[in-house]
Amino acid sequence: MYYPEPIAKLIDGFMKLPGIGPKTAARLAFFVLGMKEDDVLEIAKALVNAKRNLVYCSVCQNITDVDPCRICADTSRDKSMICVVQEPKDLIAMEKTREYNGYYHVLHGAISPMEGIGPEDIRVPELLRRLEDEEVKELILATNPNIEGEATAMYISRLVKPFGIRVTRIAHGLPVGGDLEYADEVTISKALEGRREL
Amino acid sequence: MYYPEPIAKLIDGFMKLPGIGPKTAARLAFFVLGMKEDDVLEIAKALVNAKRNLVYCSVCQNITDVDPCRICADTSRDKSMICVVQEPKDLIAMEKTREYNGYYHVLHGAISPMEGIGPEDIRVPELLRRLEDEEVKELILATNPNIEGEATAMYISRLVKPFGIRVTRIAHGLPVGGDLEYADEVTISKALEGRREL
Ligand SMILES: [Zn+2]
Ligand SMILES: [Zn+2]
Repeated sequence: MYYPEPIAKLIDGFMKLPGIGPKTAARLAFFVLGMKEDDVLEIAKALVNAKRNLVYCSVCQNITDVDPCRICADTSRDKSMICVVQEPKDLIAMEKTREYNGYYHVLHGAISPMEGIGPEDIRVPELLRRLEDEEVKELILATNPNIEGEATAMYISRLVKPFGIRVTRIAHGLPVGGDLEYADEVTISKALEGRREL
Repeated sequence: MYYPEPIAKLIDGFMKLPGIGPKTAARLAFFVLGMKEDDVLEIAKALVNAKRNLVYCSVCQNITDVDPCRICADTSRDKSMICVVQEPKDLIAMEKTREYNGYYHVLHGAISPMEGIGPEDIRVPELLRRLEDEEVKELILATNPNIEGEATAMYISRLVKPFGIRVTRIAHGLPVGGDLEYADEVTISKALEGRREL
């Protein structure tokens, strides 16, 4: 006699998510049983819709519900600049500063030899293709100020130099070892201001 | 420019769950985007099914997909005993010992004056109704060995004594301050064996 099937399946479902073990999954599942049915339906719908209605922008690789995404489709932006970030949330952190008006490229990760993540495992090839086609004058590398982020910036920098494009790195106004998404807007603004050539 | 609506809604959805703040919700949401669609559909379906197909057993109050639940419907059990536990997972922990063959009553909580949880907020009234109707000779109080669990056991004990029913408390073989569900099967067996009259 264990859990009835519907709850066992829900526990299994939660365990498919990262960082959720059996105890947490059971806690979440029992919480769901006590929720209003409308709220549960809303979460279920949100799961399916997020999976079905979101794609990667074919230009910048950001998550989007229209392709190209709203930023890539916005012709009022400065097309001479691409800011390279690791994750969609980093792009959002950059946007919140209102200091940057160029375009973006989202890598969806960083190079990490330790974890076996190479340049082809993140969106580096897509970036190179853009640099061949678009009239980019400056590539701002805004990967995280930690080992993987720095390694990724160095790698892209070496790769891109032959294109004759100015490659800059956002300044270490950001606490080293930290995550871009946790930095406040002023810090990110300062880091952007103090960017230096690589 | 923030998250596209489908992902914003999914983040909102995850934030309805306990212990999940905005950062974790965003992490989970982006993970979902990378999952296989079938897996996402399965979680969504499990959410809806758990909410729709599970009820509380009208006898023991345990979570069940048939009413009365399989344990209450099992006439081979010893109907002279009811073991009172706080949560469905505690019932499962008891069942795993294979030492107990009576029936159960699930309180869905413990009395906690600090949190404003009184006897009517958990399934104590339902327990009293059962004691009036059923031929129970012993009530085993297997609430958690912490302050709330002890207080609940004491409260129920005082309430039930007038019925002329033997009231026992599982022994403190369990580490005091701990949770029943984390105890191993041998410890729970020992605690059951050493139960004493209240
Ligand atoms: Zn885009
Ligand atoms: Zn039952």
